[in-house]
Amino acid sequence: MTYCVAMRLCDGLVFASDSRTNAGVDHIATFKKLHVFQREGERVLVIQSAGNLATTQSIISLLTSRIESQQTPNLMQAETMYDAATLIGETVREVIHRDSKAQQNGSNTNFGCNMLLGGQIGNEEHRLFHIYQEGNFIESTNDTPYFQIGESKYGKPIIDRVLTPDTPLEQAMCCALISIDSTLRSNLSVGMPLDVMIYRRESFHAREQQRIIESDPYFIAIRKAWSEGLLNTFRQLTPFPTQP
Amino acid sequence: MTYCVAMRLCDGLVFASDSRTNAGVDHIATFKKLHVFQREGERVLVIQSAGNLATTQSIISLLTSRIESQQTPNLMQAETMYDAATLIGETVREVIHRDSKAQQNGSNTNFGCNMLLGGQIGNEEHRLFHIYQEGNFIESTNDTPYFQIGESKYGKPIIDRVLTPDTPLEQAMCCALISIDSTLRSNLSVGMPLDVMIYRRESFHAREQQRIIESDPYFIAIRKAWSEGLLNTFRQLTPFPTQP
Repeated sequence: MTYCVAMRLCDGLVFASDSRTNAGVDHIATFKKLHVFQREGERVLVIQSAGNLATTQSIISLLTSRIESQQTPNLMQAETMYDAATLIGETVREVIHRDSKAQQNGSNTNFGCNMLLGGQIGNEEHRLFHIYQEGNFIESTNDTPYFQIGESKYGKPIIDRVLTPDTPLEQAMCCALISIDSTLRSNLSVGMPLDVMIYRRESFHAREQQRIIESDPYFIAIRKAWSEGLLNTFRQLTPFPTQP
Repeated sequence: MTYCVAMRLCDGLVFASDSRTNAGVDHIATFKKLHVFQREGERVLVIQSAGNLATTQSIISLLTSRIESQQTPNLMQAETMYDAATLIGETVREVIHRDSKAQQNGSNTNFGCNMLLGGQIGNEEHRLFHIYQEGNFIESTNDTPYFQIGESKYGKPIIDRVLTPDTPLEQAMCCALISIDSTLRSNLSVGMPLDVMIYRRESFHAREQQRIIESDPYFIAIRKAWSEGLLNTFRQLTPFPTQP
């Protein structure tokens, strides 16, 4: 499993992903699920992936090699974020079709995947998309300023409570990390380290990427402060009134 | 869907259930999912149910009618909580077998259900079981002092953070209600009103049952206090440090 979250805010975009991949509990590995395509000053595209690792790696490989070989269309030619999402959706369909049609009778491997795409191209606003395994996609709006893929339920309540489109980027990243912390505690298939990135609107660079490891002092500090804060809040609640 | 939680603590047992049943989003109804069987002074058995409503209602009907007709075995004859769990498990198998064997070709109805059984009989300690649709079951221990059935993920992190076997019953009920609140906010298929009950060890009565409706002043107050407490805690966290 996987947990990735991306947020589209007034000031830019926030991305956070775990890095655990597993096929059963005894086959665990670490893979980065946050991929950046950029031409500094002109476009930044960030893709997060969940689902079948063979599928998602193939999609990223094909997207990359088609840029390198200057094949048309490719992500560096897309004129809008919508075009980029369409191109990724087509690549999703291509890989899933290729791999699943060769499936042997009786095998029921799930080749599916989900992807998040956020970024900014030229004069457009920064945008965020959720691309499904069918290759179609939805776009984030102010009503729904974030998307999650993978093991999303444990970490959803906290985001729903605190995030608005006006949340500053640094606070939104803190919220994303708390959301991942709740998921890490509840689900073994989501694991450290984390890959995170802040994209500031109209910056057109991807310099604020970071890998957060278990011993990261900031992550340790907010996990502890959040845990203690929740416990204190809980202790101050009135206990259930005993019936007369 | 459904959300039920039961907790086994030093001082007794805590039960809380939502009451929404749905078959699609346009077929929603209210059904109580918390059922009590008791002989005051001697035994109290509480059953919570999730899954196929036809299955769970049939199980409760059969368990009830077999007590009324004094058929052997029945829940009032069970000498231990283990025997009661075994009997319920057998009834689960009986109903699922009866209903699913008549399934027409091509139909793939899920007849499954999950049940929680908590209570106390005679000289035994109070005990808590989770009974699966296969009719087998597990028992709560101090390491895992609670069970959930139904839409359990949204409300799990808060219980994991605050509950221990020593938690007083009134505080544990408050925790259960906060857990349900998180689930209600995130999942439309879980809905008010709630049915709750506290069982105090060796009390051998089920008088502390209560239905909590939307306008319940205590529930409104703790939802508000919890929401504000979380927001305050979040606002006090250090925002993510900008890279130099």
